Amino acid sequence: MDPNVKVVVDTMWVLITAMLVFFMNLGFAAVESGFARAKNCVNIMSKNFIVFAVSSLGFLILGWGLMFGDGSGWIGLKGLFFASGADNSPATGEAYKGVYSAISWTGVPFWAKFFFQLVFCGTAATIVSGAVCERIKYVSFILFSFAMAMFIYPVIGHWVWGGGWLAKLGMFDFAGSTVVHSVGGWSALAGVILLGPRIGKFDNGNIKAIPGHNLGLATLGTFVLWFGWFGFNPGSTMAADPNAIGHVAVTTNTAAAAGIMTATIASWLLMGKPDLGMTLNGCLAGLVAITAPCAFVGVGTSLLIGAIAGVLVVLAVMMFDRLHLDDPVGALSVHLVNGVFGTICVGLFAQDKITGTATGNGLFFGGGFKLLGAQLAAVISVAVFVFAAAAVTWLILRATIGIRVSREEELRGLDIGEHGNDAYAGFQVFATE
Amino acid sequence: MDPNVKVVVDTMWVLITAMLVFFMNLGFAAVESGFARAKNCVNIMSKNFIVFAVSSLGFLILGWGLMFGDGSGWIGLKGLFFASGADNSPATGEAYKGVYSAISWTGVPFWAKFFFQLVFCGTAATIVSGAVCERIKYVSFILFSFAMAMFIYPVIGHWVWGGGWLAKLGMFDFAGSTVVHSVGGWSALAGVILLGPRIGKFDNGNIKAIPGHNLGLATLGTFVLWFGWFGFNPGSTMAADPNAIGHVAVTTNTAAAAGIMTATIASWLLMGKPDLGMTLNGCLAGLVAITAPCAFVGVGTSLLIGAIAGVLVVLAVMMFDRLHLDDPVGALSVHLVNGVFGTICVGLFAQDKITGTATGNGLFFGGGFKLLGAQLAAVISVAVFVFAAAAVTWLILRATIGIRVSREEELRGLDIGEHGNDAYAGFQVFATE
Amino acid sequence: MDPNVKVVVDTMWVLITAMLVFFMNLGFAAVESGFARAKNCVNIMSKNFIVFAVSSLGFLILGWGLMFGDGSGWIGLKGLFFASGADNSPATGEAYKGVYSAISWTGVPFWAKFFFQLVFCGTAATIVSGAVCERIKYVSFILFSFAMAMFIYPVIGHWVWGGGWLAKLGMFDFAGSTVVHSVGGWSALAGVILLGPRIGKFDNGNIKAIPGHNLGLATLGTFVLWFGWFGFNPGSTMAADPNAIGHVAVTTNTAAAAGIMTATIASWLLMGKPDLGMTLNGCLAGLVAITAPCAFVGVGTSLLIGAIAGVLVVLAVMMFDRLHLDDPVGALSVHLVNGVFGTICVGLFAQDKITGTATGNGLFFGGGFKLLGAQLAAVISVAVFVFAAAAVTWLILRATIGIRVSREEELRGLDIGEHGNDAYAGFQVFATE
Repeated sequence: MDPNVKVVVDTMWVLITAMLVFFMNLGFAAVESGFARAKNCVNIMSKNFIVFAVSSLGFLILGWGLMFGDGSGWIGLKGLFFASGADNSPATGEAYKGVYSAISWTGVPFWAKFFFQLVFCGTAATIVSGAVCERIKYVSFILFSFAMAMFIYPVIGHWVWGGGWLAKLGMFDFAGSTVVHSVGGWSALAGVILLGPRIGKFDNGNIKAIPGHNLGLATLGTFVLWFGWFGFNPGSTMAADPNAIGHVAVTTNTAAAAGIMTATIASWLLMGKPDLGMTLNGCLAGLVAITAPCAFVGVGTSLLIGAIAGVLVVLAVMMFDRLHLDDPVGALSVHLVNGVFGTICVGLFAQDKITGTATGNGLFFGGGFKLLGAQLAAVISVAVFVFAAAAVTWLILRATIGIRVSREEELRGLDIGEHGNDAYAGFQVFATE
Repeated sequence: MDPNVKVVVDTMWVLITAMLVFFMNLGFAAVESGFARAKNCVNIMSKNFIVFAVSSLGFLILGWGLMFGDGSGWIGLKGLFFASGADNSPATGEAYKGVYSAISWTGVPFWAKFFFQLVFCGTAATIVSGAVCERIKYVSFILFSFAMAMFIYPVIGHWVWGGGWLAKLGMFDFAGSTVVHSVGGWSALAGVILLGPRIGKFDNGNIKAIPGHNLGLATLGTFVLWFGWFGFNPGSTMAADPNAIGHVAVTTNTAAAAGIMTATIASWLLMGKPDLGMTLNGCLAGLVAITAPCAFVGVGTSLLIGAIAGVLVVLAVMMFDRLHLDDPVGALSVHLVNGVFGTICVGLFAQDKITGTATGNGLFFGGGFKLLGAQLAAVISVAVFVFAAAAVTWLILRATIGIRVSREEELRGLDIGEHGNDAYAGFQVFATE
Repeated sequence: MDPNVKVVVDTMWVLITAMLVFFMNLGFAAVESGFARAKNCVNIMSKNFIVFAVSSLGFLILGWGLMFGDGSGWIGLKGLFFASGADNSPATGEAYKGVYSAISWTGVPFWAKFFFQLVFCGTAATIVSGAVCERIKYVSFILFSFAMAMFIYPVIGHWVWGGGWLAKLGMFDFAGSTVVHSVGGWSALAGVILLGPRIGKFDNGNIKAIPGHNLGLATLGTFVLWFGWFGFNPGSTMAADPNAIGHVAVTTNTAAAAGIMTATIASWLLMGKPDLGMTLNGCLAGLVAITAPCAFVGVGTSLLIGAIAGVLVVLAVMMFDRLHLDDPVGALSVHLVNGVFGTICVGLFAQDKITGTATGNGLFFGGGFKLLGAQLAAVISVAVFVFAAAAVTWLILRATIGIRVSREEELRGLDIGEHGNDAYAGFQVFATE
């Protein structure tokens, strides 16, 4: 193919899929606010809206450089600030001259690369927002998000996608079960532990269901996330490779479909009725789980992975409740549990032959424990680093400006307390706790 | 053009437009729940969400093979299960070796073909959900949807797009007025008849308007459908043919615009005020009607087709009410009536010269009754087969697990009854029937 | 590059980005209805829905011809009606034979050009709807929109993008800060003045805040507009130029992010709390301001432009309130103020070297006052023409069918008065004025 043509079609693919991933911000905003109470709707919308602005600035200022700058196995060290290092993209391979070598394999212009990577960074940051909602201070969330976009996410990104030590170890994460979802998940877990549960959630040792105020909104948000995932996974080729992108679209969709069915059945069996929230989270669980292996496994395997993910998410929601970890929207069950599961799936189910990436085969396809070992090393090291870095950040914020709103504000709602707004002016809304 | 380049650009076009069609699921969910009552919102969202998972699995397991497998004029017989027949796509023409010859004309990789066809199958299945809402059992809807995706839709698909007898007869349906919309419509009609009307709809022979609970949501949903139709119709080229896709985008949009205007005017004249529901359904009517002929007619003709469709939908809503057929969202008036109308329009208005497909000319462009006859054969045969197959399916479900919820559950709302969820926890919602 | 390939990729880019711009109609509908009261939700949705149908027909019937037809410096004169002039697109340059020479630089088929330009026309028309909402007669809005699409917008479009006198003067507006946003803004201002404020807004000289009824909806709408802007600005290349489209995506996003941050901070400082409405309008302000210069300035400059826009919009909202100009959704502050600001930014910050368009340098990059002068000439001439043309149109409508609903209807809500619909049937909604 004419190399000029290849640059054009690859750039179109990268930008259009990046736009779809950007659109996932709307999905997260809708899901999280729909699963929470009306009195906190403005606050959740605000957090989910501003977090992409924060990510855009933080990733530009420092994140990109830490993630993709040439450097050590741990962090990037060159071209750190304002994405302003030398770079002659779209040149690739030998022809590439610049300081962002780790991403010189994709032959698109520099700002197209940047935009694609930015929307992934934004996704990691927004995952946290749901888990900590209905009690976190707005300003503290904003500051934590800067830390995510400028430091926590880029460091892990460097390890896996920036030529760092996990990449060198032979660990594979096609579209980010680890880099995006488990990074968001571990950060959220630290926040959930340090914030404590919402008032009334675990009174007297009971687990109280606090129903979401708009399940239709949550459903529309999940549709948007599913839609956006067709950018997230097929776009992670960062090239319009026809075989790969068609294949990945189908593995992605099949895992989502399977997750929906098994989560629905599991909630029907375990809870007596098919709870809509479980159906929606089953979809997201399947999508998160297939994110790492989507290009390395067959369609049949994607069905199996999604089916397991759908059951896992239901069990995980119940487990976190019993552990008295209050995650209002199920973000830990979706992104953390299935981010880890999906990463491991690469080590179990990958096949070299699928779309041409030489991952080596997973355990169940005769590859032994080599690939699985690399995947487990990533799971553990990411858990340790991200949980620690996030906990330190949360603790600093707690010790200085505080991370939790006052009891009065929490009862009244964060919309009035943090923003002076009423989400549903004119509607009669009752307290539901 | 370099054949490798053609595969790349065609694959991008097919996948991106397929994603837009996937997104229509959100549109259907929003339209249908917006036009129904708050007490059934969770149930409608659940149905519209799970139906695409059902379609994804059903079409993978059997639907694709029945539709595109080489076989008789009636059904596919080779490569039936799990889309696993021999296939060397993206090879086309003489170079194609495989069992899915009917779709070997489009030069994209196998899974890209599959994904595109899957989202169309999902659309047909979701059309039914609106017509049967507010009284159908969740489990019965799920099972019926499997029948649609695995059997009813693929059979008609084989007749028209899978090289079956209607294709051989010279019948043309560019993007699915028949294959998608009338198949969905006839299946819905069978369901509406066998379910009976909602409690209170036709008491004492009166027709009672049961207003939708969120007309803003219905409007946003219609916007999404309109947006998705730019994937549905222009994508049905299954190739990035620049003349055709630009032309089809404009005929599609013009028909929608005309349908909006005439439906608004018609409701203004007939009902005294411009009812928003009619405006929205006028848009959808124009889109459904232009779906079959969009690539075969000029822009001026698309304006005429849309204008007629907008009036038809208003009259059809009134007619179904008088027939005491209870269709809460107007799905029959939109998809069935205008699916048939659009199919006939090909026979009336097609012109060979438009985008290069040799359809022959329609009646009004000197082609006589040849093309019109083939279109009418399709209308009638599809009506008979789909209505019968759907009725048998509904009857089996009715005789076994039942298709309608109890009177108590219907009055209370299906959200609590079927799912144990409240769509709007905290809001004061009054009964509106 | 093979010229046939170039036509294909450019057409795909133009159509896909046009679809994204179309989708902005949903965003406007959601923002405007969310910021207004529940009792007017159906009316606002109806206006925002039908306005694109009106634009589609008006631009087809006359608008396209006036805008792009060969003619004088003031209006197009050839191929005026139904876009039916001679045209051999996708031929460009010397090879082009037709009457729409001004847009013959882009090598895509005719209907692809038309569709792209149509969605921009639709945006200009829809901007007006928010500013005049909650008191305007439905039929008058429809008629005004026809005037916008058929005359006001195309005339300015001709001046700037149709080879008219401003183009010849060396004025640059890459994606429409002037052509789309300020045209919409000046038209809206004339409407706001002639309609007068809503009942109760400025009673006894006080400024009364009238809170929106669904701020979540407004947030989702703003996300959709941000998403759509990735079609609006990068698509305005009308060619898949890889360097330009990646660059424009990033300048666009960076300005939005900066606008969000500064508007949030400004409202925090000036109003005591970070008002969500200001955050959302800060995003839109940054987007409007970067629309003209997005391809002519660097990423750092886009950060500065967005940051200023975010403060400007907060101050402008306060200013219009003090002037007792009642703009329920902030459309004047977003589109008019920042449309003008963005146009001027080209004259201040443009650099020839950025993406290859020979704009000349702006004042701050050594270009002196030449470019700035042309930009100011556009600001002033567009203000005079559009305000005058819009005011005459509004005055004619006021003198004939009237433009404002009755006091009783305004108090009761336009949903019942204009449409006979209740947006939220079953919900308990209180009057909020």
